[in-house]
Amino acid sequence: MSRFMKNSLADLIPYTPGEQPSKKMIKLNTNENPYPPSPAVEKILENMDEDKGRLYSDPQASAAKKAIAGYYGIRPDQTIMFNGSDEGLAMSFMAFGENICFPEISYSFYKVFARVFSRKYSMIPLKKDFTIDPDDYIRSTGTVLIANPNAPTGIALDPDQIERIVASDKDRMVIVDEAYIDFGGETCTGLIDKYDNLLVIQTMSKSRSLAGLRIGYAMSSSDIIKDLDRIRYSFNPYNMNALSIAAAEAAMNDREYFRETSEKIMKTREMTVSELRKLGLDILPSKANFIFVKGGPDYYEKLKEKNILARYWNESPLSDWVRISIGTWEEMKELVKATKEISCEKAR
Amino acid sequence: MSRFMKNSLADLIPYTPGEQPSKKMIKLNTNENPYPPSPAVEKILENMDEDKGRLYSDPQASAAKKAIAGYYGIRPDQTIMFNGSDEGLAMSFMAFGENICFPEISYSFYKVFARVFSRKYSMIPLKKDFTIDPDDYIRSTGTVLIANPNAPTGIALDPDQIERIVASDKDRMVIVDEAYIDFGGETCTGLIDKYDNLLVIQTMSKSRSLAGLRIGYAMSSSDIIKDLDRIRYSFNPYNMNALSIAAAEAAMNDREYFRETSEKIMKTREMTVSELRKLGLDILPSKANFIFVKGGPDYYEKLKEKNILARYWNESPLSDWVRISIGTWEEMKELVKATKEISCEKAR
Repeated sequence: MSRFMKNSLADLIPYTPGEQPSKKMIKLNTNENPYPPSPAVEKILENMDEDKGRLYSDPQASAAKKAIAGYYGIRPDQTIMFNGSDEGLAMSFMAFGENICFPEISYSFYKVFARVFSRKYSMIPLKKDFTIDPDDYIRSTGTVLIANPNAPTGIALDPDQIERIVASDKDRMVIVDEAYIDFGGETCTGLIDKYDNLLVIQTMSKSRSLAGLRIGYAMSSSDIIKDLDRIRYSFNPYNMNALSIAAAEAAMNDREYFRETSEKIMKTREMTVSELRKLGLDILPSKANFIFVKGGPDYYEKLKEKNILARYWNESPLSDWVRISIGTWEEMKELVKATKEISCEKAR
Repeated sequence: MSRFMKNSLADLIPYTPGEQPSKKMIKLNTNENPYPPSPAVEKILENMDEDKGRLYSDPQASAAKKAIAGYYGIRPDQTIMFNGSDEGLAMSFMAFGENICFPEISYSFYKVFARVFSRKYSMIPLKKDFTIDPDDYIRSTGTVLIANPNAPTGIALDPDQIERIVASDKDRMVIVDEAYIDFGGETCTGLIDKYDNLLVIQTMSKSRSLAGLRIGYAMSSSDIIKDLDRIRYSFNPYNMNALSIAAAEAAMNDREYFRETSEKIMKTREMTVSELRKLGLDILPSKANFIFVKGGPDYYEKLKEKNILARYWNESPLSDWVRISIGTWEEMKELVKATKEISCEKAR
């Protein structure tokens, strides 16, 4: 740290993004979508008007917000767009995170946001089976932040379980991070007209194959959205670039392609889980585009030797587990084959 | 404000971006470049690999940083990229803005950053002729932030005047916002190897015609860059999207196009200033892609009636002045013509 840096940030430990390997590997480590973005997105980018580069982008990202509102049956003033959902989470911590709790095992960035903004936070342990107990959050005070499905477990709560938390104290904000919701979970978006203390955050990085274009968004009551917009206009009003706004609109409107690719990923996940379980592996029940497999560092390393990159955290109680993103059917067949070989080698 | 918003943000007044008009006007209100981005940028976007959308972008934006380092003759570890220079300024306030001073008349966002991050700040008046007096900053304590050229005046300091501030206290950080440096000002980048308390922030929104793609960057000692990177990795590690990284690289490498368009803008500025002065208008000496013209609300309104959009701030001591971006030669000829008509109408 230089001698100029704010002292309170001295012990800040930043987030560590997953590795982007330099050599060609089967890349199952950062939960990207194995399928390309909608052809409509490609068409938009190819035919981009040069004014889209030259002029400032629309700070309200109206075209994309209209598409999101249309998809979810909400009003455009009930949504806001971010340069990736991480930015949305960061601004939510700025606005509502003064005193916040989240699961001890979850997206590891939450702790970093709390620290960089000097927010008071508490972490609530999961149950032994890695599930979230809603009653723990009902009993807590301050803002609640839950990833649904949770990461890296992949386990989802039903909206009625989340509704219990939301309804238990209407003066407490509940933030639901639905980054992985489109792979079998059920969104809480339907509750935002009923409760004004619910904020749902989503991303186009996973189910809409746009990780590289950085598109996140939140949905809530228009008052909460206005609060977040005040933060955004006090930080980076032109946070969405013109190409990402156009791509977001196109991706959101191509519902058929979205449905097709999401279903392919879910089918591939079920095949993978079933095949790996046949090999005796313990796997948590996933509603995400990844699975959490009890394999330990050994499994992770052996996969890597076989040119398959998964993600491993060397910290208790995660250190027995390996997170594997769902790739194409062919890639996951390769994973199953590699896992079989690893089991055989072990048995010898 | 909703009942959930952090109390200390209650009186936060966000930044107001310039208007993007819905009807076709001569748009001289937000300092955009009248010329399209380099043809190399367009080519890059047209031929974008679909993996650029699907996969996460490079969190280090290495390709673009290499191009910037090459242009300025620095090392890639002496630069960092941002989703627009506003984001770079915001993160600089987070890291180094605990106690900060800047000119009272300058980019109006500085005050907003100070407030959103609850930083102590002081504002130093300009001299009567709208220039910055370096001695005022030498006498001050804490971080110094100066826009060079300053906005909305367009007046530039020489690097040796800034060096005096930097050298006067090596334990004080000096941040120079060079958003408009490429239109006749002289960059301080050459000083970053000599002083480790200097941070230079630039943007591709103005001189490289990429406002819509949101590309900012900073240059400093590698230690300062590491500090900023720790903030970035604690806020939004994938802050640059894949298309913007590729576009930034292409724009930075097309030096000839950059030189040509910047020179055209400077020539057009000199013509405009000379013609408007002939009409008796008072204009500050500008080294930016805009001019600050003493005309008052009346001039602004009359231009708008004639379909020319400039920028006006209804607050003392700016309220006598109108900021006019430099458009194409033809657009500025139109402005001169409109101004003549307005003078004649007034004389009648």
